[in-house]
Amino acid sequence: MTTLPGIADIHVAARRLSGLIVETPLIESQELNRRFGGRILFKPETLQRTGSFKFRGAYNKLSTLSEAERGRGVVAFSSGNHAQGVAASAAMFGVKAVIAMPADAPAMKIANVRKMGAEVVPFDRFRDDRMTVIRPYLDNGMALVPPFDDPAIIAGQGTIGLELMAQARALGVSLDAVVIPCGGGGLTSGISLAVKDVSPDTEVWAVEPEHFDDTRRSLAAGARVSNEPGHTSICDAILTAEPGVITFEINRHNLAGAVAVSEGAVRQAVRDAMAYLKLVVEPGGCVALAALSSGEIDLSGKCVAVVLSGGNVDFGTYAQIMAA
Amino acid sequence: MTTLPGIADIHVAARRLSGLIVETPLIESQELNRRFGGRILFKPETLQRTGSFKFRGAYNKLSTLSEAERGRGVVAFSSGNHAQGVAASAAMFGVKAVIAMPADAPAMKIANVRKMGAEVVPFDRFRDDRMTVIRPYLDNGMALVPPFDDPAIIAGQGTIGLELMAQARALGVSLDAVVIPCGGGGLTSGISLAVKDVSPDTEVWAVEPEHFDDTRRSLAAGARVSNEPGHTSICDAILTAEPGVITFEINRHNLAGAVAVSEGAVRQAVRDAMAYLKLVVEPGGCVALAALSSGEIDLSGKCVAVVLSGGNVDFGTYAQIMAA
Repeated sequence: MTTLPGIADIHVAARRLSGLIVETPLIESQELNRRFGGRILFKPETLQRTGSFKFRGAYNKLSTLSEAERGRGVVAFSSGNHAQGVAASAAMFGVKAVIAMPADAPAMKIANVRKMGAEVVPFDRFRDDRMTVIRPYLDNGMALVPPFDDPAIIAGQGTIGLELMAQARALGVSLDAVVIPCGGGGLTSGISLAVKDVSPDTEVWAVEPEHFDDTRRSLAAGARVSNEPGHTSICDAILTAEPGVITFEINRHNLAGAVAVSEGAVRQAVRDAMAYLKLVVEPGGCVALAALSSGEIDLSGKCVAVVLSGGNVDFGTYAQIMAA
Repeated sequence: MTTLPGIADIHVAARRLSGLIVETPLIESQELNRRFGGRILFKPETLQRTGSFKFRGAYNKLSTLSEAERGRGVVAFSSGNHAQGVAASAAMFGVKAVIAMPADAPAMKIANVRKMGAEVVPFDRFRDDRMTVIRPYLDNGMALVPPFDDPAIIAGQGTIGLELMAQARALGVSLDAVVIPCGGGGLTSGISLAVKDVSPDTEVWAVEPEHFDDTRRSLAAGARVSNEPGHTSICDAILTAEPGVITFEINRHNLAGAVAVSEGAVRQAVRDAMAYLKLVVEPGGCVALAALSSGEIDLSGKCVAVVLSGGNVDFGTYAQIMAA
């Protein structure tokens, strides 16, 4: 029986992270409000330390390890954002980090992980089993920092929900919905716990790239289902095979629904974030904005928070999206 | 004898703007701190309403007009950021705005001004006299909203300095220097008044594009000198012929110095802002970051604030800088 994280764990995580994380602001565009016919408050975790929300969960997880465990070093697999979160956290604790990364991960992400002093072990996204790649390090006593299916990781990501609700309250608005990019579901489930704790009527939506809509299909099926293998997507940050056990158990109770967005909608959202928000958002970090055009989430006259989860995109990819 | 604005005018402007402007956050990059060997706190006015600081001064200026004056409408000339500030302010007051804009201004800037309901009158940057272009509107009783050389405009821009000093205080740091993009000098002089009021020892630096370093040369000459005509620059937002009378009178007393930066340094700074800050900054808004590499401003072990003044850049220009 797995222990689910709760709101108390998120409050503990917030105290651990205080002073180490950026309290990311809420950002608004009159033009996007007009276009969508509601009030959209963006939470740009692009401005977070390491350029994505992942530092929150990784640092919180490392905090829960004993000094002896941490001292033997930590190991993780990630296309890059979790990798940077773990590398930065390990550097702050002064311990070794080994990160298995797909060889085709964005060059900026690989370079940043190395700059922070972590060892990068490249693997083939399609042929290699990630657990097999990191097995020797685990056998050597290093601690695994899972990307999402872990109570401490979920609690760390949930601190975004605490900030969001406090910031909305300070603005004097009540949120009708919160829309969140979703890979394995750590960000979505963590935020949902914090949101539902203070505002049970606020809808929480997950957004996934097409062909990687495992959470959407799992919600429909009432049980965890996997994505068809063999697909690729520009949204490298949120390409997971299936929902986590813990994350899905939380999400099945807390989510109003999940939406899948096309690559074209994601590219347009990245351009909209550039033009109207002046924020650099990576494709996977921009799916929640992309979903606003889908019509599946009722925006008319509503006040909706949209999480922009990361901004680690290569110059070349970004230039290509801008030039399109 | 011209009346110089003072700190009291900035406090009045801050009260007028309260709730209407974004209190832009301070943003920091561990990587840029390491590279420059100091602590750099970025103030991104890119996130301000209309995508640049110009809304602050324009709205404050419109507030100082009588209802009768405002009712006859306002007129301005601008390559685009002041234009958007004036257009947004006029729309909020429900009055007409006419903006003379260079025909080669960024398309995004022209489109945004029109979206806000203002009338755009295109002119030729090299052949037309801007005052001649707007003369008929002034003769019709419309009020001029000058781009920089006006006490109310300067006081509005100065509110950035109030925020900056309060935010630095909240972080527990004292600023050794503030580095600011400089066209006509409204932003620089306004911020300098607010900074010097509470921290006389904090150095204030202006940064200009090469060939448009009129403030730098004017400081050296001890009197206002003009730029050689005929040059162009990617920094469209800050291409002025010479310093303002009021702005230079303030700047000559308050500035530690001015720095000119090459177009190559500006392009690199736009890329650095994308990669390390995840912020879209237009070339003219990024000159202060570009100046950090010049060696003219002592950064070693210092805590320095850098103003990123605007983010209104076309997709094509931005893609071209990203792809370089």
